[in-house]
Order: sequence, then structure tokens, then C-alpha cells
Amino acid sequence: MTKANTAEQMLARWRGVPFTSVNVKDGFWRPRLDVMRQVTVRACLDKCEETGRIANFAKAAGLMEGEFQGIYFDDSDVYKVLEGAAYLLMSERDAELEAEVDRIVDLIAAAQEEDGYLCTYFTLTAPEKKWTDMEKHEMYCGGHLMEAAVAYFEATGKRKLLDTACRLADHYDRTFGPGKRHWVEGHEEIELALVKLYRATGEERYWKLALWLLEERGHGHGVGAIWDRADWGPAYCQDDVPVREIAEVKGHAVRAMYLYSAMTDVVHASGDPAYVGALHRVWAHTVERNMYVTGGIGPSRHNEGFTHDYDLPNDSAYCETCAAIAMAFWNHRMNLLFGDAKYADIVERELYNGALAGISLSGDKFFYVNPLASEGHHHRVAWFDCSCCPTNLVRFLPSIGQYVCAVSEDGIVVNQYMNGTCRIERPEGKSGIRLTTETEYPWHGAIRLTVAPDREESFRIRLRIPGWCRGYRVSVCGAPARAAVANGYIGIERVWSAGDTIELELDMPVNVVRARPEVAANRGRIAFQRGPIVYCAEQADNAHLTYDAFAVSPHVPFEVVEQPDKLGGIRELAGADADGRRLTLVPYYAWDNREPGFMQVWLREADCRALYMY
Amino acid sequence: MTKANTAEQMLARWRGVPFTSVNVKDGFWRPRLDVMRQVTVRACLDKCEETGRIANFAKAAGLMEGEFQGIYFDDSDVYKVLEGAAYLLMSERDAELEAEVDRIVDLIAAAQEEDGYLCTYFTLTAPEKKWTDMEKHEMYCGGHLMEAAVAYFEATGKRKLLDTACRLADHYDRTFGPGKRHWVEGHEEIELALVKLYRATGEERYWKLALWLLEERGHGHGVGAIWDRADWGPAYCQDDVPVREIAEVKGHAVRAMYLYSAMTDVVHASGDPAYVGALHRVWAHTVERNMYVTGGIGPSRHNEGFTHDYDLPNDSAYCETCAAIAMAFWNHRMNLLFGDAKYADIVERELYNGALAGISLSGDKFFYVNPLASEGHHHRVAWFDCSCCPTNLVRFLPSIGQYVCAVSEDGIVVNQYMNGTCRIERPEGKSGIRLTTETEYPWHGAIRLTVAPDREESFRIRLRIPGWCRGYRVSVCGAPARAAVANGYIGIERVWSAGDTIELELDMPVNVVRARPEVAANRGRIAFQRGPIVYCAEQADNAHLTYDAFAVSPHVPFEVVEQPDKLGGIRELAGADADGRRLTLVPYYAWDNREPGFMQVWLREADCRALYMY
Repeated sequence: MTKANTAEQMLARWRGVPFTSVNVKDGFWRPRLDVMRQVTVRACLDKCEETGRIANFAKAAGLMEGEFQGIYFDDSDVYKVLEGAAYLLMSERDAELEAEVDRIVDLIAAAQEEDGYLCTYFTLTAPEKKWTDMEKHEMYCGGHLMEAAVAYFEATGKRKLLDTACRLADHYDRTFGPGKRHWVEGHEEIELALVKLYRATGEERYWKLALWLLEERGHGHGVGAIWDRADWGPAYCQDDVPVREIAEVKGHAVRAMYLYSAMTDVVHASGDPAYVGALHRVWAHTVERNMYVTGGIGPSRHNEGFTHDYDLPNDSAYCETCAAIAMAFWNHRMNLLFGDAKYADIVERELYNGALAGISLSGDKFFYVNPLASEGHHHRVAWFDCSCCPTNLVRFLPSIGQYVCAVSEDGIVVNQYMNGTCRIERPEGKSGIRLTTETEYPWHGAIRLTVAPDREESFRIRLRIPGWCRGYRVSVCGAPARAAVANGYIGIERVWSAGDTIELELDMPVNVVRARPEVAANRGRIAFQRGPIVYCAEQADNAHLTYDAFAVSPHVPFEVVEQPDKLGGIRELAGADADGRRLTLVPYYAWDNREPGFMQVWLREADCRALYMY
Repeated sequence: MTKANTAEQMLARWRGVPFTSVNVKDGFWRPRLDVMRQVTVRACLDKCEETGRIANFAKAAGLMEGEFQGIYFDDSDVYKVLEGAAYLLMSERDAELEAEVDRIVDLIAAAQEEDGYLCTYFTLTAPEKKWTDMEKHEMYCGGHLMEAAVAYFEATGKRKLLDTACRLADHYDRTFGPGKRHWVEGHEEIELALVKLYRATGEERYWKLALWLLEERGHGHGVGAIWDRADWGPAYCQDDVPVREIAEVKGHAVRAMYLYSAMTDVVHASGDPAYVGALHRVWAHTVERNMYVTGGIGPSRHNEGFTHDYDLPNDSAYCETCAAIAMAFWNHRMNLLFGDAKYADIVERELYNGALAGISLSGDKFFYVNPLASEGHHHRVAWFDCSCCPTNLVRFLPSIGQYVCAVSEDGIVVNQYMNGTCRIERPEGKSGIRLTTETEYPWHGAIRLTVAPDREESFRIRLRIPGWCRGYRVSVCGAPARAAVANGYIGIERVWSAGDTIELELDMPVNVVRARPEVAANRGRIAFQRGPIVYCAEQADNAHLTYDAFAVSPHVPFEVVEQPDKLGGIRELAGADADGRRLTLVPYYAWDNREPGFMQVWLREADCRALYMY
């Protein structure tokens, strides 16, 4: 057996179950998805209109007079909102929204140049400067077009945007590649988008172009003035080393995550384990040294990215919302590629914390920056000049159903626990399966799954035991069952019949969280997490306390209080600080939805003389 | 307000609810109490007979020829078995056992000398040497007679043994005290026994004599050769400082705990806070620096006691069973005196770990020494020359009902959660209360209490939130309720009617336990606890592993497996070591009940690169 074969065999290459097959009826998520539909997508479309982002397409198409308005990457926001709109249309038809999207699609198609090129900034301002500056996000915008196009095609069956995207991809493929022009795109995105376009169209050229674009990096092919900035350098956009040599996470956080996502995609598509070593190295380096407890990444405002290991300040944390979302994108792909639950753990961490905090409960205000401590002056706003975060949330949240399940060689995998039903198709004449989940997750650890294969069949059902969980019990069809954990999953293999049930009970205590001592910002501090939810102290509940002027004992017992009418319905933690003053903690994702005030995730630990720590 | 008044007002002075009012029907405890009745008390009586312990009384009474047999304190074993027999007779009549006890009581009464003196060792071997050596346990034996006498009187209403005990107490009171002889008893016990005798008889002289005996200590009044041993010194039996100056736990562990128990009793009986400072100091010093996670105390075989702070070796741990029991005695008294749940936490720790490990599941084998790690050569045996531990278990376990409830000024207190019913009488015309508990504790954290006061009345019910518990929910009569923790209790005050219910749900996860870094033996090690139960790895379940040659990750998830037919019915923890090998943990109390093999509580912690620790 060759080494390559060994490595290849270690690839699980699970298949994702598209969110279109997942009907999320979850008490936690359904109201949020309704807000996305009723408020957020509408608000973002309006903002794209108001700020001239949509008009730029009309202008580029010659349908309207005027100059390019905004920033050179603004096309991408329109594409991302369309992608989100497509996801919403997939789960519920909305003629008015679809008509609006169709109108914008027409403008986009009309703005495409004869040869397929599409980027309204260059068309309108400087056609002669195309492909002269890698920082100008030409392919980044193109990538987002491709993602939107695939989504809208899958949602509606309408090909117009997909055809536009393919013309653009073909233009890239004609222009760049072996023996053609070199190109390193400054903001990764095109690479993963090309794999997605390949999956939608079957056109192998697209994933091979993605591979070529990955291989271009780290060889000095990058061009543009920004690369001369000594304080950033090529590592800012991961152009410092060839991708297969990557050992450490560096530079701009979102760019890095999109790059790793594409690397994971390409290995998944090709089966060639070329990047496996780099992916394992950089994942460990990211998660073990450079990730906040919320899942946030990239501590520095300066480069919107990484600095040095264990540099995780709380009040000045940058933690761009897009980076948290991108971390979910990457980890979902890692989970499918390697079949390990530790990646789905990160997806969960982003879903319930780092990414979800980016949007207000009302659905119309957003954080770009997500600190873990605030004296009270950091608040969500309706839009940004660089509005990547709102438009990323618009496409991320409506598609969360895709993270629920996967298909393995030997059965199915349940990664996220949400109320609802999945219809899971399996390859090669294997029985399709309908899976129904009933749970109060993330507030309660009891999960009931009802399995309904189309016909009786033997297969394995893998259930993720979350990384925060130390104890679980499982029963199958009412009888206690034994199931050991491997790669973070318990696997139950048997002949399944329609109506068979699995009951999984995950202990969901209040966990005291400590950071490694290398994290200077958290020395002498603890945080609290219950299930996947990281909690924080907010002034709205703790007006009698002063920012960072109180301490807690790790031995404090918290009353877990169901608050159905507070902050959209939460379980709050009601306890006391070390001086016996009332201390109430609420989910981090829900902070800054009430009157302004301080917020802290990491709380000072009271001098605790206990001999034993739980 | 004077300082003394302030301190006095800080005394809760709760009243204990005698175990005679508590009917324990618990799935965990009932089978153990049945074994006590069917096996243990019988086996201990037989051993007392076989070893001449009972015959010594007949000989001292002149009813039988022969020399004193055994060790000078052997009378105490007989008393302790009678005390245990009395507790068993209280909960279920047993004519045969009662007849046997009556026969022994007759011998004891007959052995009492004319002036009330009773200690068969001196009567038979050296009457002229009475009261010349504090180490000879004369009053220690007398104290155990008093405890047995009170128990047997309460169980049967028979006064004979009680009268014997009172004659002995009166003899002490005539001989010792202000203006009479000095005396420091080498092994404390008499002091707490005198308070108990006072409570049973109302005779104030008894608790005042206890107070005087306490005050004798630390002034150089101790006599006897053993005090000249430089390696022990007077601290061995807490004769080094006046008791109110005690700041640190020292010397022989059982003696120390009996002393502190008596100090607590005397403050409770008198309301005089004289010892409050010393009790708080020495409790903190014991629990925060000198207690094993099992509740074991006294690491050293040399003095059966304490050494230096944080000296808690695992394989050579002495941890005498009696010391664990005595720790429960003391902490129960501290709970009643100060009204803080942290003391009941220690009672619980002993009940389910340190003390319970002292007896085999079969009820006829005992540990004197309770290490936390063993290579496989430490086993329970049927009896010891110094057999204090078996006879302490015989009186400790049948009386556990007394730890369940207490009566406060403003209501009732639930300290331990066991299935069964309590009849709680309250003073001064307040309504009596019948309390029914339904729970699967210690295996499950759901507890349902049904309250039935004799008449509708407003009072407060305090429920202990165990120290290991970080999250709880409570509802009253089916409605979610809010109840904050104070002094380790939630308090629910309202007008209670018969049939009202409280549902308390305690999160009961698998807790990873770490010791303070000062504990050298546990550096780089973790232990696992679920609810009150400390777990261990035993070779019987882990034959593929080698003693101390495996490591575990604190992130390992354990399957919590109900094993109704294993080790008397347990929940075992099924997981894996850091190398992915199966690792099964069982309750520490249940170890050494199968084929001999290694055992470890504190397991090597695998190098864990996780950035966050739960």
C-alpha cells in the first residue's frame, strides 16, 4: 500500500445532506429563520438598493447613467443577499421576493461583459486596470456570484444566473491556468465557489481551476501595491507559502478560512490527499492556539486577522462576524472530509455563539466586530460601508439545515441536533432515510430520533457527542444500549425499520471554562458555558455590579431559569458573585439587545480556597 | 450588641431529625441496610464473642474464670456493635437480636464496679493503675457505652444499659472536674457521648463535664508514657493547645474529629460561641488542605493521622475508615450548628465514598485503610485485632437516616436525598410535617418531594444544592419557581398544604476533578466524579491496561451505563483512555469486591492541547 493510498483511505469523504432536504422546525432556530425572511433579507436588499450597489449593475449594463458608487467589492454584497434569498425561497416560496431577485438577476446578467468578465467596479471605473491588483476582489466577487447562482438555480430551477456564473467561470478558465496568465486572488472565495459550481454543473474544469488557483499561491505571483505594505506582507492574504506547506494560521481571518475551505473541498472532490497534512496542521494551530471560546477568530483590527499564538484579548477582540461564519464553513467541510466530530463541534460553537452574535434578535442590526468584553460602547448597527457581515449572515443562517446530517459509506451521521425532519438520499441503491428529531436542544440534552428507512436495511447511525459533554446515555427502541465513542461519535449499527427510535441523553451541566495559562487575557478568569451556549454577564441584568469589578467562584451553583419571554426565549443562569451579590448570565449571542451597558464573558475568578476543582 | 451576642446570633442551632423518624426506602441505601441487619451486625457480634471481647465482661463480673483477652480498648467494640444493633432494632424489630443484646447488656451491667467504674481491662488486669495513663482509653470506652446505651434506650425503652451509662457518667463526674482530679482522655469520644447522654436524660451535669474535659486539654494535664514519644507529642491526641486556640488539624485523625464533634456539640448545647473561631479555622484547615477527594483524612500510617498540608499520597494513603465516619459525625454537627450546606456536602462525600468504601458489598469484610491507588495487594478482611472500623460501620450506616433532615427556626432543611419518608416534629406548637422523597439519587439528579404538614402553615423548606452541582432547576406544585442559593441551600417559603410538591432537578454530569497544584501527588492527574460518587479504574474492568501506565483526556466523553446487576447496582462510566483503549470506571466505594487487581482514583492526565478546559 502506497503512502498516498493510506492517506486517501483516511479520508471519510462523507456527503453533505443539502439543507433543502432538511426541514428545520426547531424552537430555537425557526424564529430566527422567520426573522431572516421577514426582516433581514428585505433590509439587506433595501440597503443594497439605497447604497447604489444594485444600481452599479444597471450602470455597468448601460441601462442607467452614473458613476460606480461604493467600494470595489460591493458587487459581492448583492450576490450574497441573492444567495440568502435563494435559501429562503427554497424552504418557502415568496413570489414577491423571487420577482425582486429576478429583476436583480437581469441586471447582473446585463452587466456581464461580452467575454464573460463581470465586476462592475472595473467595468465602470477602469476597464484597463483589470487583473492588475490582486486586492481588488475581482474573483472574490465572481466567487460570490457563483455561490448565489448555484443557490438560486437549486431554489428555483432558473438557469439565468447560473449561466452568467458559468460564463464568468469559463472566462476565468480561458484567461488563467497552466500556460496562461498567473493569478493570485487577494481575497479567497473563488476557489470554494468553483468547487461548488463544479458540483452543480458537473464541469470538472471548475474544480481543476480551483486547484490551480490554490497552487498559484506562495510563489510570488501576487501583484498589487498592497503587497508592498511591510506591516502586512503576503501572509495577509496567505500568499507567503505554497498552500501544501502551510503550518500556521496567518493574516486576514476570513481570507484564511475561505482558503482552507477550498483546500478541503478540493481534497474532497479529487480524493488526492495533497493538502491533508497542511489542513491538519493549520486546523490544530487555529483551534488550539488562536480561537476564542465563542469561536471567534482574528483578534486584531489592524489586519482583521491573526497576530501571535494565544493573543486573545477580550475587550479589543476583533472577531469579525464573517470570520466566525467562515470558520463554520471550513469546519463543516473538514467534518465531511475526515469524518471527525471535532469539526462539527466548531460548527456548533459558531452557530450558537460567534456567528449568531453578529445579528440582533430583531434581525436588522449587525456586529462586524465581536468583542468578549465591553464597557458599554459597542453596539450593532444597520449596515456598514463594508457590509460583508450582514450579507454573510443572510446566506449563513438560512442554510444551517445543511449542517444537520451527512451520509457516510456505511450509513448516516447526525452532526447537529435541531427539531425537524431530514430526507436523506443514499447512493448505489441504498435505502433513503427519513429522520425526525425531537429535542429542546440547545437548552436540554434529551434528543429523540425517529428513523424511517424506505425499507428495512442495516446501516450505521452516527450521533455526535459534543465536545462539551462528559456523560451520555443512549437507548434504542426503548432499550438501554451500549455505544462507545469513536472520532467523537457513537455509532449504532443494526437493521433499522420505520419507526425505530433512538433516545440520546447528553448531560448538559453548567460548565466552568478555563483557558490555557498561555492566554494572558484570561489568567485568573473563568467563563461559563451550558451545552453549546457560552454565557456572559450583561449590565441589563446586573446593574448593581460594575464592569470587571466583581469576581465569581467556580463553585457557584446557578439556577437554570427558563425565560421564554426574555431575549427571544433563553435559559438564563441565576447565581451570585463571590460577595453574594446576585449575578445573572445570559447567552453571549443575545448580548446588546437591550439598554446599553457592560458585557463580559470571562469573569474574574474569586480567590478560591477549595482543594478540589470540578 | 455585644460581640458574643453577634456570634451567638450567627449560630443556626438547627435541630437534628432523629433517624427513628426517617424511614429510608432508598434503592441505594435499603439493600445496604438489609445487609447490615442480615450479615454485618451478626458477624461483628460473632467476632466479639470469638475474640473474647464479650467474655471480658463476664470475667470482670466474676461470672466466668479467665484473664482479660485482647487490647485495652476492646470493650468499645462491643458497645459499638450494640449501638448498631439498637439502630437496626429501631427500624425493624428482631426478637432474636434483641435477646442477644439483652444478654450482653446483663454482662456489661454486671461488670460495672461498685462505684460505677467500668473498663474490663483495668478491672481484670490492674485495678490499681486506673487513671494513670491517658492512652488507655478508659473514658473512650465509657463514651461508647453511653452512645450504645442512649441508642438502646431509644430503640427499646429498656433502661438497664442507660442506667449503667449514667452510673458511669456520675462516677466520672464525681471523680473529675473543677476542684477534683484533672484528666485528659487520650482518645476523645467521651465528650460527645456526654452531650448525647445529656440530650437523652436532660442531666445538665453531663454536657458540663464534657465542656470541662474539653477545657482540660492543652494545659499539660495529660499523663502517660506515650506522651513522651518525641515523634508524636501531645498533638497526637490534641493535647498541645487549649481547644479554643486550635488553628490547625493535627495528630490522630479519628481523635481529632471526635474532639471537634464534641466542641461543636457543646456550642450547640450551650449557645456559648466560645469555640466558634476554632471550629471555623480547623474546619477550613482540614477541608481545604488535608482531605482526600473521597473524604478520606489522615494520610499517615505512622500516627494514623495528619502530617503536613497538602500531603495526600494516593497509594500510601492511610485514610482510616473510622476517620471518614468521624468526619461525617463532625460535619453533621457543624451543619446543625452553623446552618451551612457545605458541611452536609462533606457528610455526603463520606456517605458515598470514604466511609462506604470501608465495607464490602457482602457486608462481612472491611477496610481499615483506604488508599486511593493500589497495585492490587490491598484487600478487605473480616476483622482486625484493633477492630474499630467494622464496629464503627455497624453503628454509622444503620443511622444514616439522621443525616437526611433538620429543623430550623423557620422551617425544615433537607440535607440528603434518599427515597423514603420523614416525620418531622417542630417545637412550640408549630405543625409537624411529613416529607416524602422520591429520587434515583445518587444516580440521577431529579428529586421529587411531597410535603404534608399536619395543617396548612407558612414555613421555609431549605434544599441543599450539593457542592458538586453547578446548575439546578426547581418547580413548586408543577410551576417553575425561582430560588436563589444562600449558604448552599435554596429556600422556598410559602403556605404549605398537604400534597404540595417540590421538584428539584440537579444537573449531575461527569465532573473532571483537579486538585490544587499544591497537592504534589495529583499533579498531572485528574479524577472523575458524577454527582456525589467518586469513580476509580479497577483492573477487573480494565485488564488490558496496566497500573498507572495509561492516561486520560479531560475531554473524554463517558457513556453513563446503568448496570443493575454489577457491584450491587451501579452506573458505570464507559469511555476510553488517551490511546483510544476502552476505559471503564466504577464507584470508588465498590472497589475490591471482585478479583484482586489494581485500582486508581487519580489518573494520569494525557497531554491535552485543548485551548479551553471544561
